Amino acid sequence: MRTLVSYDIEDDRIRNKICEACKDYGLARIQYSVFIGDLNHNRRDELRQRLRRILGKNLGKILICPICDKDLRLMNEIRVEPGGIIIDD
Amino acid sequence: MRTLVSYDIEDDRIRNKICEACKDYGLARIQYSVFIGDLNHNRRDELRQRLRRILGKNLGKILICPICDKDLRLMNEIRVEPGGIIIDD
Repeated sequence: MRTLVSYDIEDDRIRNKICEACKDYGLARIQYSVFIGDLNHNRRDELRQRLRRILGKNLGKILICPICDKDLRLMNEIRVEPGGIIIDD
Repeated sequence: MRTLVSYDIEDDRIRNKICEACKDYGLARIQYSVFIGDLNHNRRDELRQRLRRILGKNLGKILICPICDKDLRLMNEIRVEPGGIIIDD
């Protein structure tokens, strides 16, 4: 199931570890602190536990949100890239 | 339907306008650049158009993601707040 992970982490070292963990689970970075990718229930729970351990007692917020196919179809993304290339789908 | 909005906007002035627009539509800020709240289809589309106008040709990425009740139940949030208060639901 597609899964979105977003986070607000103050400590740079912790934030980098969270970022690496998301990459380890095959998620793609779509925004600075937002990743998205396909995870089954077990892998999602594994990642949740790993992120929980990494965060430990450091200030921060992590959201792990599964996105069903119907929601995925309704999802909109607006992107303006260098050179003024506009994506609005 | 619950809706998540996340954004990466370089320009502070544009980012603040995007933030204000999300508040205008009754969304709650759950992370620095992530809002969540209930929007019907029309309001979600209205907000999308408004965010699109605000962003204009400025560099940035905006994700607008509806979240159905089932996904909402599966959503996890890990929060560590000042004083070491840990929320993991």
